[in-house]
Amino acid sequence: MSEHDNRLETWTGKTIMVFCAHPDDDTMCSGTLAKLTQNGNSVLMVFYTNGNKGSHDLTMTSERLAAIRKEEEEAACKVVGIPPENIIWLGYDDGELEYADKRALAGKVARLIRLYRPDAVFCFDPGRQYEQWHKTDHRTAAFSTVDGARSAAYHLYFPEHLLYEGLQPFAVDDFFYFDSQEPNYEVDISDVVELKILNLSKHTSQFGPGHFRYPLDEATAKAEAEALQARIEAAKGKKHIEKFRRGETVY
Amino acid sequence: MSEHDNRLETWTGKTIMVFCAHPDDDTMCSGTLAKLTQNGNSVLMVFYTNGNKGSHDLTMTSERLAAIRKEEEEAACKVVGIPPENIIWLGYDDGELEYADKRALAGKVARLIRLYRPDAVFCFDPGRQYEQWHKTDHRTAAFSTVDGARSAAYHLYFPEHLLYEGLQPFAVDDFFYFDSQEPNYEVDISDVVELKILNLSKHTSQFGPGHFRYPLDEATAKAEAEALQARIEAAKGKKHIEKFRRGETVY
Amino acid sequence: MSEHDNRLETWTGKTIMVFCAHPDDDTMCSGTLAKLTQNGNSVLMVFYTNGNKGSHDLTMTSERLAAIRKEEEEAACKVVGIPPENIIWLGYDDGELEYADKRALAGKVARLIRLYRPDAVFCFDPGRQYEQWHKTDHRTAAFSTVDGARSAAYHLYFPEHLLYEGLQPFAVDDFFYFDSQEPNYEVDISDVVELKILNLSKHTSQFGPGHFRYPLDEATAKAEAEALQARIEAAKGKKHIEKFRRGETVY
Amino acid sequence: MSEHDNRLETWTGKTIMVFCAHPDDDTMCSGTLAKLTQNGNSVLMVFYTNGNKGSHDLTMTSERLAAIRKEEEEAACKVVGIPPENIIWLGYDDGELEYADKRALAGKVARLIRLYRPDAVFCFDPGRQYEQWHKTDHRTAAFSTVDGARSAAYHLYFPEHLLYEGLQPFAVDDFFYFDSQEPNYEVDISDVVELKILNLSKHTSQFGPGHFRYPLDEATAKAEAEALQARIEAAKGKKHIEKFRRGETVY
Amino acid sequence: MSEHDNRLETWTGKTIMVFCAHPDDDTMCSGTLAKLTQNGNSVLMVFYTNGNKGSHDLTMTSERLAAIRKEEEEAACKVVGIPPENIIWLGYDDGELEYADKRALAGKVARLIRLYRPDAVFCFDPGRQYEQWHKTDHRTAAFSTVDGARSAAYHLYFPEHLLYEGLQPFAVDDFFYFDSQEPNYEVDISDVVELKILNLSKHTSQFGPGHFRYPLDEATAKAEAEALQARIEAAKGKKHIEKFRRGETVY
Amino acid sequence: MSEHDNRLETWTGKTIMVFCAHPDDDTMCSGTLAKLTQNGNSVLMVFYTNGNKGSHDLTMTSERLAAIRKEEEEAACKVVGIPPENIIWLGYDDGELEYADKRALAGKVARLIRLYRPDAVFCFDPGRQYEQWHKTDHRTAAFSTVDGARSAAYHLYFPEHLLYEGLQPFAVDDFFYFDSQEPNYEVDISDVVELKILNLSKHTSQFGPGHFRYPLDEATAKAEAEALQARIEAAKGKKHIEKFRRGETVY
Repeated sequence: MSEHDNRLETWTGKTIMVFCAHPDDDTMCSGTLAKLTQNGNSVLMVFYTNGNKGSHDLTMTSERLAAIRKEEEEAACKVVGIPPENIIWLGYDDGELEYADKRALAGKVARLIRLYRPDAVFCFDPGRQYEQWHKTDHRTAAFSTVDGARSAAYHLYFPEHLLYEGLQPFAVDDFFYFDSQEPNYEVDISDVVELKILNLSKHTSQFGPGHFRYPLDEATAKAEAEALQARIEAAKGKKHIEKFRRGETVY
Repeated sequence: MSEHDNRLETWTGKTIMVFCAHPDDDTMCSGTLAKLTQNGNSVLMVFYTNGNKGSHDLTMTSERLAAIRKEEEEAACKVVGIPPENIIWLGYDDGELEYADKRALAGKVARLIRLYRPDAVFCFDPGRQYEQWHKTDHRTAAFSTVDGARSAAYHLYFPEHLLYEGLQPFAVDDFFYFDSQEPNYEVDISDVVELKILNLSKHTSQFGPGHFRYPLDEATAKAEAEALQARIEAAKGKKHIEKFRRGETVY
Repeated sequence: MSEHDNRLETWTGKTIMVFCAHPDDDTMCSGTLAKLTQNGNSVLMVFYTNGNKGSHDLTMTSERLAAIRKEEEEAACKVVGIPPENIIWLGYDDGELEYADKRALAGKVARLIRLYRPDAVFCFDPGRQYEQWHKTDHRTAAFSTVDGARSAAYHLYFPEHLLYEGLQPFAVDDFFYFDSQEPNYEVDISDVVELKILNLSKHTSQFGPGHFRYPLDEATAKAEAEALQARIEAAKGKKHIEKFRRGETVY
Repeated sequence: MSEHDNRLETWTGKTIMVFCAHPDDDTMCSGTLAKLTQNGNSVLMVFYTNGNKGSHDLTMTSERLAAIRKEEEEAACKVVGIPPENIIWLGYDDGELEYADKRALAGKVARLIRLYRPDAVFCFDPGRQYEQWHKTDHRTAAFSTVDGARSAAYHLYFPEHLLYEGLQPFAVDDFFYFDSQEPNYEVDISDVVELKILNLSKHTSQFGPGHFRYPLDEATAKAEAEALQARIEAAKGKKHIEKFRRGETVY
Repeated sequence: MSEHDNRLETWTGKTIMVFCAHPDDDTMCSGTLAKLTQNGNSVLMVFYTNGNKGSHDLTMTSERLAAIRKEEEEAACKVVGIPPENIIWLGYDDGELEYADKRALAGKVARLIRLYRPDAVFCFDPGRQYEQWHKTDHRTAAFSTVDGARSAAYHLYFPEHLLYEGLQPFAVDDFFYFDSQEPNYEVDISDVVELKILNLSKHTSQFGPGHFRYPLDEATAKAEAEALQARIEAAKGKKHIEKFRRGETVY
Repeated sequence: MSEHDNRLETWTGKTIMVFCAHPDDDTMCSGTLAKLTQNGNSVLMVFYTNGNKGSHDLTMTSERLAAIRKEEEEAACKVVGIPPENIIWLGYDDGELEYADKRALAGKVARLIRLYRPDAVFCFDPGRQYEQWHKTDHRTAAFSTVDGARSAAYHLYFPEHLLYEGLQPFAVDDFFYFDSQEPNYEVDISDVVELKILNLSKHTSQFGPGHFRYPLDEATAKAEAEALQARIEAAKGKKHIEKFRRGETVY
C-alpha cells in the first residue's frame, strides 16, 4: 500500500470525512482532526444519530436532548477548527441505528462520498471484535460506512445519484479506523492536547454531573470549569497519541 | 369550504406542488398546469418513481429507461411551462413504491412541503376505489402524499426537519385530487388543449410503437408526428375539461 | 342477526372493550359508554397510540405530550364512569401505527380479547371508505382490531397465549363500529349529553387554544370554562344520538 | 371489451389459472371450474396459504391441519376434474398472508403466469369493499394476484425469470373476479350443481362438526353423508348461477 | 471493577435473571443456579424461544413440542430450586429469533429488567466468536440481552415503561456470560453436580433416543434411567466447574 | 470427527454442493472442484447473487451485466467439468444480499439441500473475522448457508418442503469453508493448476481491462490472451494448494 506511506501530518488542502455514530464520538480522534484543520485541510463531520437518549436527567426529553447535543457538538467542532456548515446530520435516533434500513444507510453514505469525494474517511473500526456487544450504534455505523464507501465506487449501486444529481462514482483510497483493537498507525497529538480536552469538555450533557442533571447549576458549572483547567494543565508537556487502524480497501 | 370558493383560474403568484407516481402521470392534469403557469404561478413536480419498468422493448434496460423517461418528462413539462429545475425526483423503482418504507415516504413528502410551503397540492385521489387493484404505485403515491401532508403540519412529526434545516411546520390548505371517481371540480382547458396534447406526446417510450421498440425508426417517427398533428387539429374548437375532487383537509 | 335484537341500553353486568387509535377517539361514543357504566356494565378502554404528536405548541415535546394526554384521558374516562385501572395503553407513537408490525398488533388484540372475553367490542369501522385517506391510525386501528378478534377465536393463532397463560380461544359476538359511513344502529344519549360534553372537554391539549399553547394561561382557561358551560346549556333538552354500524362477524 | 364477448362456456383447450387464498376458496367458483374441465380446458389451482389455522378442535395442530387440508383439497378438486398435479401450493401460513413480503408474492405470481401463460385468471375481487375488514388473506390474495399479473407483462419486472429460466413476459387478457360486490357476468351451473356440492363437501375439517372435532366419529360421519345427499337432491332441477366481475386489464 | 470482587458463592437474598435462547440452555450454568437458590437467592429464568423445532421424530408437531419442552423445562428448573412461576416465556419460534424485530426484543428485555431490577444477569456471551455460525438463536439472544440491558438504564429508551407502568430505569451491574470463549471466572459446582445432571436429564425430547422418538417406550425409558444413575455415580467425588466471562458494563 | 479422515481426493460418485455469493467466487476452490469432477463426483453450484453491479464501465447496465456474468460463469464452470445444468441461480442483486429476507434465504438453502442431499457443502467461512467489514455478500452467504443447512436437518423447519414436495430432512455431514482465516485442510491442486487459471480467466468483466470497458477491443483481447498463457506457463511445475477449514457440524 505505497499510497499510505504519506503521513497525514504532512497533508494540506485535502478533504477528510469523519463518520460518527453519535455526537461526541469524534473525541476519539479530535486531536488528529485539530492537526488536520491547522494544516489547511477541510474536515467534514457526518453524524448518524442525534444522541437523543443519553441522559439520566429524568426531566430530559428526546427532543430537547437532540437540540442540546447539536449545540454541544457544534461548540466541540469549533474548538478543533470545524465550522457548523461542515457538519452533516443524518438524524437517526440514538441507540436505534441497528434497526434502520441498512440499504438506505449505505445509500446515504455513498451519496455523500460521491458528493464530497474525500481523500480519506475516518470511522469506527468494523473489525473491532468488542464492538459486538456494547454500543450497537458503533457497530452499525462502522459497517454502514464501509458498505456505503464500497457502493460509492460503482455506478450501478444507487444509480439515481448519477441520474438525478450527476454524481460520478468515487473510490475512497484511505481509511482510518478509530476505536480499533488492532491499531497500526499512531498520531502524536501532544501539541494539540489542550484542544482535544476542550473539544471533549463541550459535551456537558454526556459526562460528569450534566449526565444526571441538565443544565448545570452555577456552582457545579464553576467546579467543572476548574476541573477542566486542571486536566489541561496536567496534560501539557506530556506525550499524547491517538491510534488508528489504517485500512485496506477492497473493491 | 369557503376558502375553496376562489377558483384556481384566478390565481397568480402561487406555488403549486404536484405529486405523481410516474413520469407521465401529470398528463392527467397538464392542461390545468399549463393554465397555472401562464398565469404566473410556480408549479413544482415531484415524481416518486423513475418509471424504469414500463417498456415492451426486450432490449431495453432499467437504467436506460430511467434516463429516457427523465428526458421525456423534462420535455413534457417544458411544453406546459415548467422548467427542469422545478422537477424533483425521489428515484424509487417503477411498480415497487408499495414495497418502500412508508414512514420514509411520508417523511420525504413532509420535508418538501415544509420547504416549499405550497398554496395547493395536486395528487392521485386516495379515495378512488378502483385504485385498489390496478396501479399499486398510484395508490401508494396517493396515500403517501396525504400522510406526508398531514405530518408536515405538526412539528413533532419528523422533528429533524426543524432541528437540522430550520423548516417550520406547514399545513397545506387546498388539495386537488386527479383521477378521481367522485370529481367535484372542473377546469375548462379548451384554450390550452394543444399544450396538453403536446405534453402527452413527449412520452414516446410509453404510448404507441415506442412502447414496443425504442427509439422509433425514421418512418415511424414521421407517422407518429403526423398522427399527433391530426389529434391536435381534431381537438381544436371543442370543449375540454379536466376533473378533480377538491378535497377537505383534516388535521 | 337475531342475537343482536337485544339493545345495549338493556344490558347490565356485561364487559365491553373499546379499541381506540388515540386518546380522545372515545369521544365518538362516550355518551353510549356513560349509559353502559350507569347500568352496571364494565367498560375497558384500549388505546393503540399515546397521542404524542398532536400539538401546535412548538415548545411541546413528545414525551411531555404523551404524559399530558394520559392524564387528560384518565380525566375524560372518569367523567363517564371508567376508572384508570380499566385503561390499557399499547404505547405506540401517534401517527405511526400503520408502520408497526401488523402481526404483533393483531396478537396483542387477540391476547386482550382472550383475557377479558368481552360481550361486545367497539372500534372504528374498518369499512369506512373515507378512512382511506385521512387518519391512517384510524384505519390501522380498525383493521388490527377485527384481525385480532378473528385470531382470538382460533387456538392456532398465537398459541403462546394458551401455552403460557392458559388463555382459551374466544369469539366476540357483537361489534359496534363507530365513525361509520353506513350506520345501522342509533343510541339516544340525550340524558347523558352533559357527560359527553364534559368528557370531550378534558382534552385541553387537542381542541381550542390548548392545541397551540399548553398549558392555558388563566384568562384563557376561564374563557374556556365559560364556553364549556354554554355548550352544556345549549345541548340540554334536545335530542342527541350516537350512531354505529353494528357488525356481522365472520369466522 | 370485445374480446370478452366470447363466453367461457364455449371454451375448449384453454388454460385457466385460479388463485385462492385458502383451500376451499375454490368453492366460490367450483361449478364453473367443473364446466371448464368437462369442455376440455386445463385448470391450474394456486393456493397461497395451506389453511393451517382453521379449526376449533383444540387437539389439532398446524402441521396436522395443513396435511388434512391438502388431502381435502385434492379430493375436492378431483370431483370437478382437476388432478393433484394441477395444484400448486405456495405454502404460506393461514391468516398471515398480509404479513408476507408483498414483492415476493407478486414475483411468485408473475413467474407462474409467465410459465403457464393462461388464457384467463380467476381470483378474489380486489375491488370488493367488504374485503376490507374480514378475511385479510382474501384481500391480500386479490391484490397480489393482480399485481403479479401486471408484473408478468413487462420483462423488467423480475428479470431473473427470463435470464435463468427463459420465461418470456406474458399479459393475461381476461380476469374473472369471484366473491365480487359488483358482478357483471353470470354462469349457469345448474347442470353441474351436484359436483359443486360434492366439491364443497370434501372440506370436512372446515364446515359442520368437523370444524370442532376431527376426524368425525362414525355416527356423525353417517349423519353428514345423509345431509349431503339431501342437499344434492334439493338442489337438483333448480337454477344455480355463479357470479363474477369480468375485469378490465390495465397494463 | 471492585464491585466484582465479591464472589457469587457468598450471595444471599439477591435477584438473578438468566436469559436463555431455548429451554435447556440453562444446563450451561445449572450447577451455579442450584448453588444460588440453595443460598437463598431468587433466580428468574427468561426463555426467548419455546424450542418448538428440535426433534427428529417425524410425527412430532411444533405445538406439541412446545408444550413438551415447557413441561421439561419446568421439571428441570424444579431440580435446581426454581419454581414454575419464576419462568418467563417470550414465546418466539425456535431457530427464528434472528428474524424477529430486534427493537421489540430489546424492549421486552429492558422492561423485564426494569421490573425485576436484578443484581446480576446471566446470558450467552455476545463476544463468543464461534457463535457466529452455529446456533443463530444463541447469537441473537446474547445481543438482545445486552442491548436490552443498556436500554433499561436510560429513561428515554422505551419511555412507555415509565409512563404506563411506573417502571424506573435500572442499570444492571454484573454480567455473567456463559458458553464463553474467554472465561475469566470459575464456579466450583462439585457439591451440586448431581443436581446439574438431573437438571439436564429432564430434557428427554432433546438428547438421546427421545430426540428421534417421543415419548420413550418403557424399555428405553428404563435404560435411560439406569444410564442417568450411572452418570451421577461417575460424577460424584470429582471436581466440576462452570466457567463464565464476568463482564464489563458500558453505559 | 473420524468421518473426516477420508480425504476428498479419494472420493468418487459423491455429490458436492458449492454455495457462492457471486459468479467468480468459485475461483477460490476451482482447483479442488476440478479434481472432484475428474474423479467422477457431481458438483452443483449455487449462486446467491447474479453479480450485476461489478463494473466500472459506465455504459454497462445491471441487466446486461447479469447476462454477461451468467455466460462467464457457465464458461468458467465448463473448464472444471461442471455443466450449465448443474448451476442454480438464486438471482439476488449483487451487494444487496444482506438486505434480503434472511428467513427466506435459509429456506431456499434448506430446500436445495433436502433435494440434492449432498455428501459435502462448500461455502465461505462464517467464522472469518475479516468478513465483517468487506464484502457484506460473502458474510451473508456464509451465514445463510450454514443456517439453511441446520434447518435442513429438522422436519419442523420449513415443513412445506416435506408436505408439498415430499422432501425428507437431511443433515449435511461435511463442510469445507473457503476463504478461511483458520484453515485446517489443504488440497494439492498442482496437477490442475492450468484449469484453475483458465477458470478464473473466463471472468473477463471482473478483472483487468474488462472491468473498465466491456467488451474488450481486439488488441486488448489479444494481449489478455497472451498474458493468460504466460500465467499458465509460469504456474506449471510448481506446487499449488487450496486451503479450507473443514468444519464441525452442530445440530
